[in-house]
Amino acid sequence: MSENCLFCGIVAGTIPSTRVAETDRAIAFMDIAPATPGHLLVIPRAHSTDLREAAPEDLTAATLLAQSLVGRVIDRLDGATGANLLSCIGADAWQSVFHTHLHVIPRYPNDPMVLPWKPESGDLDEIKAVHEKLI
Amino acid sequence: MSENCLFCGIVAGTIPSTRVAETDRAIAFMDIAPATPGHLLVIPRAHSTDLREAAPEDLTAATLLAQSLVGRVIDRLDGATGANLLSCIGADAWQSVFHTHLHVIPRYPNDPMVLPWKPESGDLDEIKAVHEKLI
Repeated sequence: MSENCLFCGIVAGTIPSTRVAETDRAIAFMDIAPATPGHLLVIPRAHSTDLREAAPEDLTAATLLAQSLVGRVIDRLDGATGANLLSCIGADAWQSVFHTHLHVIPRYPNDPMVLPWKPESGDLDEIKAVHEKLI
Repeated sequence: MSENCLFCGIVAGTIPSTRVAETDRAIAFMDIAPATPGHLLVIPRAHSTDLREAAPEDLTAATLLAQSLVGRVIDRLDGATGANLLSCIGADAWQSVFHTHLHVIPRYPNDPMVLPWKPESGDLDEIKAVHEKLI
């Protein structure tokens, strides 16, 4: 655990999150500034600054959890036909929280998705409604 | 192997590619329509349409190879300070070749990278020069 790390706080439960799934090495929760409805973050429980530094077993656990959630968002979210898995390594690659994370971003036909997206606080009621479909 | 699959042809060697690294389950080669200099593709040798269908051991092998290459592009390519790992699942998520693949896209300060990028055939001499730094 790294002091002052937002995602370590989410792992520890001292910072609230809307959890979708978890394993012994990784957790998944709703992104509160979603690029599209259903945007999730998957993180290893163990702290690492970015994907380069993640232990292989932690990166594997996060990847396999993300894989299962890619299937879940496409299966359960109305209109979702695909998804992007994205990781950002370094500030020049749009990383803003320095704890390794994988984005799972559901995609919809003709959605306006572009990267970088402009993170804006989402509607918490909408996020909760999507969360209900994913747990 | 899936007939008429471009990436299965690259795995088999019947379609040429500029290979950067390989393991028993995955290979990495230069993208010929790079989003930024040094853009690589990492694929499992075994065919699957997209990440959802990849066997866990194949997805793990591709991810760990991609992890090592993220470090390599940042270490070896002049000016690279970060990278994106990206997978596209489904046509609505910008997937265009239907064999599971992970993009490793080096990033540079103030580069003009946006997603979706407009794939255009790159300069093959430039791609070869980058390849030399990565093998």
